[in-house]
Amino acid sequence: MGRRKSRFLRKPVEPFTVEAGLSADEVLNRMERTSFQGRSLGTARRIWEKMLGADVTIFLGTAGALSAGGMRMAIAHMIERRYIDCLVSTGANLYHDLHETRGRRHYIGSPSLDDAALAAERIDRVYDTLASEDDFCKNDEWIAAFALKLEKRPHTTREFLYKLGEYLWQETGNEGILTAAYKANVPIFCPAIADSSIGMGLSQARHRDVTAGAIDVIGDILESANIVIRKPATATIVLGGGTPKNFINQASVQAEFYDDRVGGHKFAIQIVTDVPHFGGASGSSLEEAQSWGKLSIESEKVTVHADVTLALPLLLTALETTGPEISRKRKKPEFDPSGRVLVMNGQPLGDNRFMTGSGS
Amino acid sequence: MGRRKSRFLRKPVEPFTVEAGLSADEVLNRMERTSFQGRSLGTARRIWEKMLGADVTIFLGTAGALSAGGMRMAIAHMIERRYIDCLVSTGANLYHDLHETRGRRHYIGSPSLDDAALAAERIDRVYDTLASEDDFCKNDEWIAAFALKLEKRPHTTREFLYKLGEYLWQETGNEGILTAAYKANVPIFCPAIADSSIGMGLSQARHRDVTAGAIDVIGDILESANIVIRKPATATIVLGGGTPKNFINQASVQAEFYDDRVGGHKFAIQIVTDVPHFGGASGSSLEEAQSWGKLSIESEKVTVHADVTLALPLLLTALETTGPEISRKRKKPEFDPSGRVLVMNGQPLGDNRFMTGSGS
Amino acid sequence: MGRRKSRFLRKPVEPFTVEAGLSADEVLNRMERTSFQGRSLGTARRIWEKMLGADVTIFLGTAGALSAGGMRMAIAHMIERRYIDCLVSTGANLYHDLHETRGRRHYIGSPSLDDAALAAERIDRVYDTLASEDDFCKNDEWIAAFALKLEKRPHTTREFLYKLGEYLWQETGNEGILTAAYKANVPIFCPAIADSSIGMGLSQARHRDVTAGAIDVIGDILESANIVIRKPATATIVLGGGTPKNFINQASVQAEFYDDRVGGHKFAIQIVTDVPHFGGASGSSLEEAQSWGKLSIESEKVTVHADVTLALPLLLTALETTGPEISRKRKKPEFDPSGRVLVMNGQPLGDNRFMTGSGS
Amino acid sequence: MGRRKSRFLRKPVEPFTVEAGLSADEVLNRMERTSFQGRSLGTARRIWEKMLGADVTIFLGTAGALSAGGMRMAIAHMIERRYIDCLVSTGANLYHDLHETRGRRHYIGSPSLDDAALAAERIDRVYDTLASEDDFCKNDEWIAAFALKLEKRPHTTREFLYKLGEYLWQETGNEGILTAAYKANVPIFCPAIADSSIGMGLSQARHRDVTAGAIDVIGDILESANIVIRKPATATIVLGGGTPKNFINQASVQAEFYDDRVGGHKFAIQIVTDVPHFGGASGSSLEEAQSWGKLSIESEKVTVHADVTLALPLLLTALETTGPEISRKRKKPEFDPSGRVLVMNGQPLGDNRFMTGSGS
Repeated sequence: MGRRKSRFLRKPVEPFTVEAGLSADEVLNRMERTSFQGRSLGTARRIWEKMLGADVTIFLGTAGALSAGGMRMAIAHMIERRYIDCLVSTGANLYHDLHETRGRRHYIGSPSLDDAALAAERIDRVYDTLASEDDFCKNDEWIAAFALKLEKRPHTTREFLYKLGEYLWQETGNEGILTAAYKANVPIFCPAIADSSIGMGLSQARHRDVTAGAIDVIGDILESANIVIRKPATATIVLGGGTPKNFINQASVQAEFYDDRVGGHKFAIQIVTDVPHFGGASGSSLEEAQSWGKLSIESEKVTVHADVTLALPLLLTALETTGPEISRKRKKPEFDPSGRVLVMNGQPLGDNRFMTGSGS
Repeated sequence: MGRRKSRFLRKPVEPFTVEAGLSADEVLNRMERTSFQGRSLGTARRIWEKMLGADVTIFLGTAGALSAGGMRMAIAHMIERRYIDCLVSTGANLYHDLHETRGRRHYIGSPSLDDAALAAERIDRVYDTLASEDDFCKNDEWIAAFALKLEKRPHTTREFLYKLGEYLWQETGNEGILTAAYKANVPIFCPAIADSSIGMGLSQARHRDVTAGAIDVIGDILESANIVIRKPATATIVLGGGTPKNFINQASVQAEFYDDRVGGHKFAIQIVTDVPHFGGASGSSLEEAQSWGKLSIESEKVTVHADVTLALPLLLTALETTGPEISRKRKKPEFDPSGRVLVMNGQPLGDNRFMTGSGS
Repeated sequence: MGRRKSRFLRKPVEPFTVEAGLSADEVLNRMERTSFQGRSLGTARRIWEKMLGADVTIFLGTAGALSAGGMRMAIAHMIERRYIDCLVSTGANLYHDLHETRGRRHYIGSPSLDDAALAAERIDRVYDTLASEDDFCKNDEWIAAFALKLEKRPHTTREFLYKLGEYLWQETGNEGILTAAYKANVPIFCPAIADSSIGMGLSQARHRDVTAGAIDVIGDILESANIVIRKPATATIVLGGGTPKNFINQASVQAEFYDDRVGGHKFAIQIVTDVPHFGGASGSSLEEAQSWGKLSIESEKVTVHADVTLALPLLLTALETTGPEISRKRKKPEFDPSGRVLVMNGQPLGDNRFMTGSGS
Repeated sequence: MGRRKSRFLRKPVEPFTVEAGLSADEVLNRMERTSFQGRSLGTARRIWEKMLGADVTIFLGTAGALSAGGMRMAIAHMIERRYIDCLVSTGANLYHDLHETRGRRHYIGSPSLDDAALAAERIDRVYDTLASEDDFCKNDEWIAAFALKLEKRPHTTREFLYKLGEYLWQETGNEGILTAAYKANVPIFCPAIADSSIGMGLSQARHRDVTAGAIDVIGDILESANIVIRKPATATIVLGGGTPKNFINQASVQAEFYDDRVGGHKFAIQIVTDVPHFGGASGSSLEEAQSWGKLSIESEKVTVHADVTLALPLLLTALETTGPEISRKRKKPEFDPSGRVLVMNGQPLGDNRFMTGSGS
């Protein structure tokens, strides 16, 4: 026709073609050239690869019933492979992980089961998944007993969860999120620990010994901001939103208050089902995060609007094709999360003062 | 402990484990033992396998911007492999398919593009996907020119779309939904054709010749119900909801009015993003469909709450491992959709009267 | 402090204050100064007032189970008050309206009822609402009997629905959507009539008389575009998305093809629960509509993300405070939808050719 | 017809009729006889009235950007009127409340503003709402300065927030959530305080004085459970889900562990936008909560799927017609939240041991 195509019309959509025996990697490659959330998931893999190739500290946030829903070994895998450097989680995900690491199980149910019948048999339902209330009560007691063994002083959730992972590993030798993080020296923060069964276990320890169960969640804020100040190049991967999403962003905002080298995460992936238009933090857009400085204006970012149980298995399996090689070369931050004071790359990070201008 | 486990706690969730090089088939196998929508997608594959192994007529409904979004060859694949027997679609999906079969493309864009700039360059945006308005106008004219060649009598959408697919194949020799359906003798219904650019093309034919562009959508109702009456064992796969979802169910309800052997679909899969609690048909539950008799009370069924572009590539690639073998043995209904009267398994189906008690 | 406030920080949010006895009007006034969807609903009222004050043809689109869900008299009210000029609806909304106008009812149920028990008693469930299948079958027969009385020639849905409303009024004298539109000479289009129980009634007429039940949906496209060409200043109100949303936009796009005075709707309100990021038309943003020219770049527009049953009662009751006065002065287009040819402001609009340059 | 109507078809839907000047109360009365979420909101008012008429302790949970979004005076109203007895909130809602009580404002913006431009002017966006980052930094410092004045010992969030409300009232004399709770002796818990700008302020106090900023979130668990044990008849109202929703349920579950008179909340209302099928706690159904014993099997309950900014103004304004009269007669629990130990109905509740069998 002689007429020049618009500058907007450069890269065509490639229809997905079905073939027997395709690997997850190849399926996701092909989805990357389609549209909507299929494309977004493909883009998430590319951004993750870039994160791994860059010199950044990668935060992972996990909310929703991921461990109960069969995602705990996938999260443990990210930790073990060091696809991420620091985990921020809801208490429930760590608690359900502990439940399985201790040899208990979650069970396949259905959303249409009779809840009165379940209650009568002391079975707790999470949508289509079930667990025994009695097993849960035993976990709570186990956590209480563990908490009673600790030094009678406040622990940040980071220190507490390290020691919990250590004890769990010693007791069970089983794989899971807490034990993987213990072995890989990946710090875990749980800012809303009081809103979880781990918190309930701690409260039961307190019930038995008034000097037990002291948790220093404000120390967590200082430590997490100091991780950012120590190395102001960061990235965030959010699964499900919730308190972890905001806590990771808050670390960046708080760090910037004390160190103006901090300029927001350089990369961001979020897999969420909430939407922006009701104003809640879980569904808030990554663009909105840029106004706050949580994300750098130049960041590479993608939102995948999907259930994590649907998106993560495909994403991680595809990443496993390229990720290990990229990850091998990366300069991972090295943590020692075993003591009262968190150590990063050989330097202690305060839990009682913000660092300033410490360089990377 | 000696205590018997509850009858509800029989089948444990198996945490998803990541491995390099896993096939889509294996990924989906593992997802089937997790929870939430990951499990639902795994279940969808099993139900589809059962459909293919049973002696049922399988309807597929497609709504949403699937063709523009890169899913047209996946839909064509289902037709070509005869994983489905009859397609009910929105006009847009067929139109965007025709656009690509005619050699035009959709393009990768972004939801944050400036719509005023796009409008100035006559580019139409569908979320993150773009197309040329000028190309669309040429399609409309092409459809109008085709419609002017047809006999000057009303056509059901089924007959019209067969002839459109035939002409498209003769003109282009390119693969796509319409051409695959033509070659496989799979009938296509488009009950809301007036709400689409195919309808716009037909209206432009009418503008040029007052005797052109007559479409008999009521004939479609009779034919689709007669397909069910002819063989009262049916199944439904719905991608995205919309008019196709309801039209497929309506065929079953209308058929039952004339033939009480009809008792609702035996199998149902829906992949939708809408939810039940606002009362709309797109999001309505499969349980609700049972109250209407659209679905048999004993039906096997699953809803996957996900974007089709995310779920379908994985589902179809996994199905390709087992589906061809199962499908080879199935008793597929044989259609001749080329004439004014639709023929099924050698017997003409009325477009002007409902059949009764004709047996399968 | 001496520092100037940012230009962005001009108009503060005013916290909603609760007071006994506030009118709906005052509640919505106060919501307009809050955030998120509360504010959006307040904005919708202002834009509707502007529509009524401007010289535009106002289209209303209705999808979802609005009539079954108790909204039919609210829609009838908009017609009777001439807050809108032309209705585009799904068939279900018109059918459920007819059901109640004929003296049958929908009933209050619950989403957790046992669907097998309902099916056994022939009761159809729409989320939390119930109806008798036997009553529905009688409606279908009533529609079939009516259709058999009509001249044996194709009718546009606009002509058919006018005559249906007329007959319904003569038979019952009851208020409702169809009868209000008949009395107010407001044309109704139902582009997906084949996907509804009205279509089923028409198919049953055809079953009894092969010359009955001919519907010309392509004529609807011509007529609806000619309404826009006749007066190229338009506005759109969409409740629920679906085929009506797209059909109204298509009328504008199709009109522009023949008359370049047409430049997209000047005002747009949509109350929807779908979201943009899955690519479907129901959830598509009004910004996206601007790229297509469906909406003018300068249009005033708002999306309210809410269930219509929650938003519409408050919106319409508030509008009733100011709307009648504004509406009294407006230059309403006058239709005569009674004949084969639709007449607008005294001039016949073609159903077989597009008008050009006819002025307003 | 002689045939008996089904037992399911007893109470017809009454179409909503529009009238000028209707009060919010009357609008909601009429919505109660419609369907879907309009009916759910009407039902929520009836259940709230029953709560107020029963002898129960009413918990309110608030998540999402309700204070920034204009709902803080509505929440303060519930506290002042004692429509609720105990508040569990995210930190953000309390922080944004403090921001306005201190005389700063949130501003009306738009979701389509340029976030880079906002970042350049240090303006933070929450969907369509804006605030000054500099104002926020000053709040943080103000909170830090306040925290430095407190005794150097751990405070539960309940004690800390009481003193914060007290100080805020003394300093400003302005109405808001924190000051209303202070004046009405309504305890506030903030289990995820570490994930909020209040936590950031506390961390800044710690930065200045290592002995400051100690928060005892485990004490909150004991206190909240003891509120339930003290009077095992409870009710829950949840706005938005999040940590407050779970914390309120956890109090009930934890209480039951120590006192088997506890049997779950007797009444439950939740207004949420999340859905159950992704397994997250925010969207989880009230039926599911019954399997856990969080809710009594006999409880009266309703979920309203809506944005709080849309639903709450109408709900509270309507409740104001009947609520004050009902509330006047209710036996409200009386708290003294001013000290290290929370006092309820004259009896101290432990923050270091669970009570048992204390009677109501």
